[in-house]
Amino acid sequence: MKIAPSYASSLDLERGSVDMTHGAGGLATEQLIREVFAKHFRNDWLEQGHDGALLPPLKGNPVFSSDGHVVKPLFFPGGDIGRLAVAGTVNDVAVCGAKPLYLSASFILEEGLPLAELDRIVASMADTAREAGVAIVTGDTKVVEKGHGDGLYVATSGIGEKLVDYVIDGRSARPGDAVIVTGTIGDHGTAILSERESLGFETEVVSDAAPLNRMIEALLAAVPVVHVLRDPTRGGVAATLNEIAHQSGVGVELDESSLPVRPAVAAACEFLGLDPLYVANEGKLLVILPEEYADMALKALRSDPHGTDAAVIGRITEEHAGVVEMTTLPGGKRLVDWLHGEQLPRIC
Amino acid sequence: MKIAPSYASSLDLERGSVDMTHGAGGLATEQLIREVFAKHFRNDWLEQGHDGALLPPLKGNPVFSSDGHVVKPLFFPGGDIGRLAVAGTVNDVAVCGAKPLYLSASFILEEGLPLAELDRIVASMADTAREAGVAIVTGDTKVVEKGHGDGLYVATSGIGEKLVDYVIDGRSARPGDAVIVTGTIGDHGTAILSERESLGFETEVVSDAAPLNRMIEALLAAVPVVHVLRDPTRGGVAATLNEIAHQSGVGVELDESSLPVRPAVAAACEFLGLDPLYVANEGKLLVILPEEYADMALKALRSDPHGTDAAVIGRITEEHAGVVEMTTLPGGKRLVDWLHGEQLPRIC
Repeated sequence: MKIAPSYASSLDLERGSVDMTHGAGGLATEQLIREVFAKHFRNDWLEQGHDGALLPPLKGNPVFSSDGHVVKPLFFPGGDIGRLAVAGTVNDVAVCGAKPLYLSASFILEEGLPLAELDRIVASMADTAREAGVAIVTGDTKVVEKGHGDGLYVATSGIGEKLVDYVIDGRSARPGDAVIVTGTIGDHGTAILSERESLGFETEVVSDAAPLNRMIEALLAAVPVVHVLRDPTRGGVAATLNEIAHQSGVGVELDESSLPVRPAVAAACEFLGLDPLYVANEGKLLVILPEEYADMALKALRSDPHGTDAAVIGRITEEHAGVVEMTTLPGGKRLVDWLHGEQLPRIC
Repeated sequence: MKIAPSYASSLDLERGSVDMTHGAGGLATEQLIREVFAKHFRNDWLEQGHDGALLPPLKGNPVFSSDGHVVKPLFFPGGDIGRLAVAGTVNDVAVCGAKPLYLSASFILEEGLPLAELDRIVASMADTAREAGVAIVTGDTKVVEKGHGDGLYVATSGIGEKLVDYVIDGRSARPGDAVIVTGTIGDHGTAILSERESLGFETEVVSDAAPLNRMIEALLAAVPVVHVLRDPTRGGVAATLNEIAHQSGVGVELDESSLPVRPAVAAACEFLGLDPLYVANEGKLLVILPEEYADMALKALRSDPHGTDAAVIGRITEEHAGVVEMTTLPGGKRLVDWLHGEQLPRIC
């Protein structure tokens, strides 16, 4: 007698673990989708149960982005790989000047991953999606043998609709623009490394992983134009500004005294031999726009919970094109170079 | 002195390998993107060099799909993980009745992967994208330490625009519909397993991995309506038809004598103890539509190089809802059940 899928016994979410059958495309895959993914992500598009999701028409031009996530450990102070994956893709769509709407999630699970961990991560993705106001509408699950993964990798992609009719990209910085950062730098990377190395700092360092699309929407509504928006993740503020300097053919001058750094992060970085300028952020933006709009921008950013510490940290120059320089605390100048080697592996 | 990225020495694509710096978000990541990904994928959207791609407006409703790929080995007769990843996502978008347009690719590379292999896989993705007429517009690269991956995993997502104004999905099969398969079944899974087990069959079994969007477009132009389109990948024709029977609340009756199976695949499956009905296809479609349009559909499908062996293999019934039955060669009936365990791991 055929047992219809809906009558199969439930997964043991407390003590069970992922096995190879969950990736085989049969009944076990179907059950995992229904009892974990569909349970948390629940929306009309997933209900379509098709290979893809059929979406309503978009109002603005589509923006499309994709990111893989391999952070280690899976859970860390301030977040987990699920929050990171959703916030990361939401932010990548939003920094193109778009409103993120729909996300996909492709999971690569390692045989033996406790179902309880998977369930917690998927719940965190659903929470973060709600926070951002986006829906996770389609996805995929693959399973690899024990020893060929690291618990869980997840790739998220996102679609949004453009909010403004001008270009916002790394090629659009202009001499005279102000450079704003929306809060303290280096929080995420320092939190990961502290957790990984089991460093017991007196003050816990917490990841800033957060979806920033609502703050970006408020910013775009408040100012006539923004030239560049970027979230300084891997390689930190230093790598991102070098990319922008290179893409726009301009110089960047930073002022060290204006860089917001939490004392606990500064202390941890000093201990670890890291420079916060190169450490990943997952809940911060770099905003580059004409200097005359800097105050308007700061006002809009600071009214968002993720932007309370927003500050102007430098300016765009015509001189030394392609180069990022910083006026240091003692008053000298130093080059803020590209990240040449490996700062922190598996940070996002 | 600062060396601008464009003057850095080139990657050694013959003898070099992936290291952790390629995933760190600094100069090495930038170089890998430029000298491998951008070289092969070259298009205006990648040139934007932003966190996401800004796309032209879509004509029809958007369709969005995503798939992870962990096939082992990376190269196999008839294809490689790159061809599979592009064709797989193109097909997942197309079976929703859409024209696939834009793809993203998120790579998870294992430290030590030869750059020559990466370059070959990326070239294959670019070739397959050209074959399908889609552009790979955005992406991401992460690197995990040796022993935490398996050379290369890649997640692809795709966006398309709906071609027809009616619904095509797994819930739309109706009693009286004909069930068509567009060619021989079980080719892909059998090819992978033969390669993995180093089985030296006399006739080589070759994967059918191919983008089917052009064939689907021709089909949709040729018939007034299609109820269901699916590509029977993991779990094969059996798993896909069970899903459809369940989603639509209908029965499926197959006729074993009409199932197209290559003699070499039949022989290999017999040797391996596999049933071709449960073996993955990566270049075949199941088409379910009113019986009166079956001949029109066959004509359109057979005029495409991927559909020359298209055949009606069964019909949709009101009886035994949720169940797939088959009239066997000797004339009996057998249940074609859900795939309960693991047929073939790491098949796509």
